[in-house]
Amino acid sequence: MSANSPDDLADMIHGLGARARTAASVLALAPTETKNRALMSAASALRRRVAAILDANIDDLAAAGADLSPAMRDRLILNGQRIEAMASGLEMIAALPDPIGHIDSQTTRPNGLEISRVRVPLGVIGIIYESRPNVTADAAGLCLKAGNAAILRGGSESAKSSRAILAALQDGLTEAGLPIDAVQLVPTQDRAAVGLLLRLDSFIDVIIPRGGKSLIERVAAESRIPVLKHLDGICHVYLDRDADPVKARAVTLNAKMRRTGVCGAAETLLVDRGALPMLPDVLSDLIVAGCEIRGDDVVRRLDSRVLPASADDWATEYLAPIISVRVVEGVAGAIEHIALYGSHHTEAIVTENAVTAEHFMAAIDSAILLWNASTQFADGGEFGMGAEIGISTGKLHARGPVGVNELTSYKYLVRGSGQVRL
Amino acid sequence: MSANSPDDLADMIHGLGARARTAASVLALAPTETKNRALMSAASALRRRVAAILDANIDDLAAAGADLSPAMRDRLILNGQRIEAMASGLEMIAALPDPIGHIDSQTTRPNGLEISRVRVPLGVIGIIYESRPNVTADAAGLCLKAGNAAILRGGSESAKSSRAILAALQDGLTEAGLPIDAVQLVPTQDRAAVGLLLRLDSFIDVIIPRGGKSLIERVAAESRIPVLKHLDGICHVYLDRDADPVKARAVTLNAKMRRTGVCGAAETLLVDRGALPMLPDVLSDLIVAGCEIRGDDVVRRLDSRVLPASADDWATEYLAPIISVRVVEGVAGAIEHIALYGSHHTEAIVTENAVTAEHFMAAIDSAILLWNASTQFADGGEFGMGAEIGISTGKLHARGPVGVNELTSYKYLVRGSGQVRL
Repeated sequence: MSANSPDDLADMIHGLGARARTAASVLALAPTETKNRALMSAASALRRRVAAILDANIDDLAAAGADLSPAMRDRLILNGQRIEAMASGLEMIAALPDPIGHIDSQTTRPNGLEISRVRVPLGVIGIIYESRPNVTADAAGLCLKAGNAAILRGGSESAKSSRAILAALQDGLTEAGLPIDAVQLVPTQDRAAVGLLLRLDSFIDVIIPRGGKSLIERVAAESRIPVLKHLDGICHVYLDRDADPVKARAVTLNAKMRRTGVCGAAETLLVDRGALPMLPDVLSDLIVAGCEIRGDDVVRRLDSRVLPASADDWATEYLAPIISVRVVEGVAGAIEHIALYGSHHTEAIVTENAVTAEHFMAAIDSAILLWNASTQFADGGEFGMGAEIGISTGKLHARGPVGVNELTSYKYLVRGSGQVRL
Repeated sequence: MSANSPDDLADMIHGLGARARTAASVLALAPTETKNRALMSAASALRRRVAAILDANIDDLAAAGADLSPAMRDRLILNGQRIEAMASGLEMIAALPDPIGHIDSQTTRPNGLEISRVRVPLGVIGIIYESRPNVTADAAGLCLKAGNAAILRGGSESAKSSRAILAALQDGLTEAGLPIDAVQLVPTQDRAAVGLLLRLDSFIDVIIPRGGKSLIERVAAESRIPVLKHLDGICHVYLDRDADPVKARAVTLNAKMRRTGVCGAAETLLVDRGALPMLPDVLSDLIVAGCEIRGDDVVRRLDSRVLPASADDWATEYLAPIISVRVVEGVAGAIEHIALYGSHHTEAIVTENAVTAEHFMAAIDSAILLWNASTQFADGGEFGMGAEIGISTGKLHARGPVGVNELTSYKYLVRGSGQVRL
């Protein structure tokens, strides 16, 4: 489908929104079993359609051609295993408890009014993402479980793959008797479509951008719709003077090197001056594992393999096997550094001193604070949420992992017997 | 204080934001007793400063002069009773439980990690309001209780009154040993200051506009900061065929006429065709109480005093003794009308039929749904929240009454013993 004029494009986006709103009003009242049937049927349809999805993916890869960096190619490519992961992901979402209808609280007022706060869907969720085609299934599945309609806008590189995945999702909706407009893809790669989507505040309740910093900044600047931000993770590990050296080595190595491309990977290691004796072993572990170290002068004097850190390093999310290392004066120095350079995502302290640990966790304004554990635990699955759409670094509505519960709102139901207000 | 150039103004607003952020980091760790002492001391200071506050208010009234409508004058004017209400409001806020530090949930994962979700302040809250000077005390008190710094931007008509009230609040902060920058007023009426404030996303976490539709629309359009919207309340009462006629009369009269200027006042009465026999008494009650009725053709045939309703009436928030009345086909007709014209605020159904009532409450996408009770109960105090900053009609973060709990966020604290992720 193509849009020939700005008016056609505006009509197309308006139509998407209107159909999503209508679908959302059906989904809001859909029983749990119906939503789960749609998820399970969509999982079967993904497996049934493996060949078609792989063909579409090969077309996408061919169209992208040599422009693709190896990292982008890895994000875009699908295989049988990755499609199976999408299918079992949908089954896992089906197995989660349904958040809709949950009663958060219930009180009876002195005048006899019974007031309940009950979970309801957010409504229509717009998700703007980049090259990973699996987001199409994961995000749509989470939205559907929480009774929301989804409008998805994927990257141009993955357009055909996403459309092939969408067909499977719509099979699932049809088999469950739910409207296929519950999950829609923006059917054009025209960049103006995103601008139109971000102004569709009469139909879309929340926008979730998933991707690089420039995408998220564009969305935040242009959107008239509330945004659930998933910004960068400049995550810190702080080694305190009271750290257990064995834990310091294990936590630092894992926080940096388990996977370097995830938002919960550590980017900066802060070392209490009183913890310097344990630093050489920590640095050696990292270097042996293939990590580049950029340190301040004190750190460089400890190990000749350490490169010099510049001021920019403290504000950089490498998403690569590189770590910046700085010596600070105790926990106060760590808190001060993180307030200046952190991104309010995830920070860890290694210490055996409970007072120091609790102070660190109370004083730092981040979504996730860990004591003697790796920052790589910043993940909805590890938190027991089953699946996540990302890690929110904003403070409104949802902070930290955004799972199925975070894709809901609430309303108040007040049951009376004719009460009037004095 | 005056700003001489755009640069001076930008510097001034930036300085306000930076000082608020610093104050917020102190407030976030302030013990409950300290925050309560500040609130109690501010209440005493308001009482001590009554004469100065009234003098400032007389200056404001004189400056506004004849331009002021009676309704605006009523909102602006202070007297001993209104100042006492502000003082006792602060004492009531001090008596509320402290939401900060509350543990929402706590789990131990199979790997031994203990994960808690703990309430924390939002940080810095910007409140933009119009003529009521009492908002200065009420809003600042709620923000302070939840550990937030507040930047207040009141209307120009109430500038001196607000400054006199601020002095009392800052007395309270000083007596409790808290930073006076915890509550600041924008010290200029330059309209460009609001635009600058709305772009200060590095320092302000959320903007709450309180006022008319045009203010709220400007804020929604310009803000780069998340907004907690308090939009108009086009609230409906629906009289079902199974309504008790006595409850129908009492609820309708109260919902419309108890106070007509509040956002929870009913603006439209929807009447099931099967409930028409009870309508004449309902209309007579309203007319006797001084209400103007604008009805469709069927309604006009029932009572010659009913004026004709135009299509605009269904979308109008009168905030006045006027009500529009329309006949609909059962609860489905009511749901359809409200989906078209409602503002997602508050709706009531009068019926003895539980199935009809539950369907009405489930199907309508509003913050508050009442069964056999007046829409005028849409109020944080009536919900047991102690005090409210307004009624949110958005679905993100907070919906319905916004009290002290809704002015908080949360963070995850993860306590381990050296765990790393596989």
